[in-house]
Amino acid sequence: MHLFYQPDIPAGTLHLDDEESRHVVKVMRLKSGDSIQLTDGKGSFYTANITEANHKKCAFEIISKEEVKPHSTFRHLAIAPTKNLDRTEWFVEKAVELGVDRISFLLGDHSERKVLKLDRIVKKAIGAMKQSGQAFMPQLDELTSIKNFIKQVQTDYKFIAYVDFENEALLKDKLVGSASNLVMIGPEGDFSEREVEMALAAGFVKVSLGANRLRTETAGMAAVHLMNLV
Amino acid sequence: MHLFYQPDIPAGTLHLDDEESRHVVKVMRLKSGDSIQLTDGKGSFYTANITEANHKKCAFEIISKEEVKPHSTFRHLAIAPTKNLDRTEWFVEKAVELGVDRISFLLGDHSERKVLKLDRIVKKAIGAMKQSGQAFMPQLDELTSIKNFIKQVQTDYKFIAYVDFENEALLKDKLVGSASNLVMIGPEGDFSEREVEMALAAGFVKVSLGANRLRTETAGMAAVHLMNLV
Repeated sequence: MHLFYQPDIPAGTLHLDDEESRHVVKVMRLKSGDSIQLTDGKGSFYTANITEANHKKCAFEIISKEEVKPHSTFRHLAIAPTKNLDRTEWFVEKAVELGVDRISFLLGDHSERKVLKLDRIVKKAIGAMKQSGQAFMPQLDELTSIKNFIKQVQTDYKFIAYVDFENEALLKDKLVGSASNLVMIGPEGDFSEREVEMALAAGFVKVSLGANRLRTETAGMAAVHLMNLV
Repeated sequence: MHLFYQPDIPAGTLHLDDEESRHVVKVMRLKSGDSIQLTDGKGSFYTANITEANHKKCAFEIISKEEVKPHSTFRHLAIAPTKNLDRTEWFVEKAVELGVDRISFLLGDHSERKVLKLDRIVKKAIGAMKQSGQAFMPQLDELTSIKNFIKQVQTDYKFIAYVDFENEALLKDKLVGSASNLVMIGPEGDFSEREVEMALAAGFVKVSLGANRLRTETAGMAAVHLMNLV
């Protein structure tokens, strides 16, 4: 089943944008009167009938609506984008498939990537949401410094993936169900000492993801998977 | 720390192959007398000194050896390779990073990919083993039909990722620690009815990986991660 995305349905928008319209009309060759499935990315699925099969602005009328309950655990992942952007895009795809509510992108003292264009990342996330048949589009935050992020973020439980060999705590044993959890993953060059100190002072708890040395994007994906298991 | 791979150290081979030798001599510019770290992929790390910095056949002498205990759970994942080979290569990289003992590649009734060259996959696995600092190289099996695989495989616990809405069991609740576990993931077109029946007759248990519809490679990666958590 193909799923289309129109975030503005709750605000009254009853047509698809350019790209989705082209897909409906040119690729799937659907006509006026044909039925489509939609999501607003805000927790609702819709069954709709096409009223005008325009390949730039495909209009529809809503026949029925189904609301989906949000996941009981709020899953927030903060990660420094990788030097190789493919790896970050891959992470976003997998995180959305597994289920994630918010992804924040971080700029650290040891970050190799200092700019991030969010538009490609947003497209990946939309594609993964539709492909995996979900009704929630995660919030994606613009790149921000680790310092500012630590100061401003609000959440019930905050974890920093930073291995402390003397006091090792596994993330899987520390996550708390039915609450908001945030896991912060550092850049390929790891967090700086200053950043770790700031995080601890702000109430973050140091956690390990296991015995193996994981790449940034693998650590992020494992953390998202764990947040889906609590 | 850079890790080099020579699987034949236990059989007495005391030099690196072509590619690894070139890396040591041409890229890292190491000389006779310099120290390197090695693994045989069979559970041992070695510290060695270079005795001849030859860029085609770099010879070394072993100074010390450290044996690593195998993971208490044997993690066996069987998966049908994806149409897009990048996705399968990506899966192998992530599975090895997270930790996997054996990967079997399956050809199913609904497989779109009917051939698989193992050499690129093996390279990905070696790269991931070295990058994540591990001493075990997983066994990688040539493509085989699901029918033959089901008949021949030996393991303590066998699971097939196939959602049965009337009788849903989560893989995370079914895996057994300190035993050999096998999870079988179907092709993008899913298992055929015949394949599911054969698997059940052979003692496989139907399991779900969660609420979301996951891509083949994401399902494989999630299953490997779960086997590492028990």
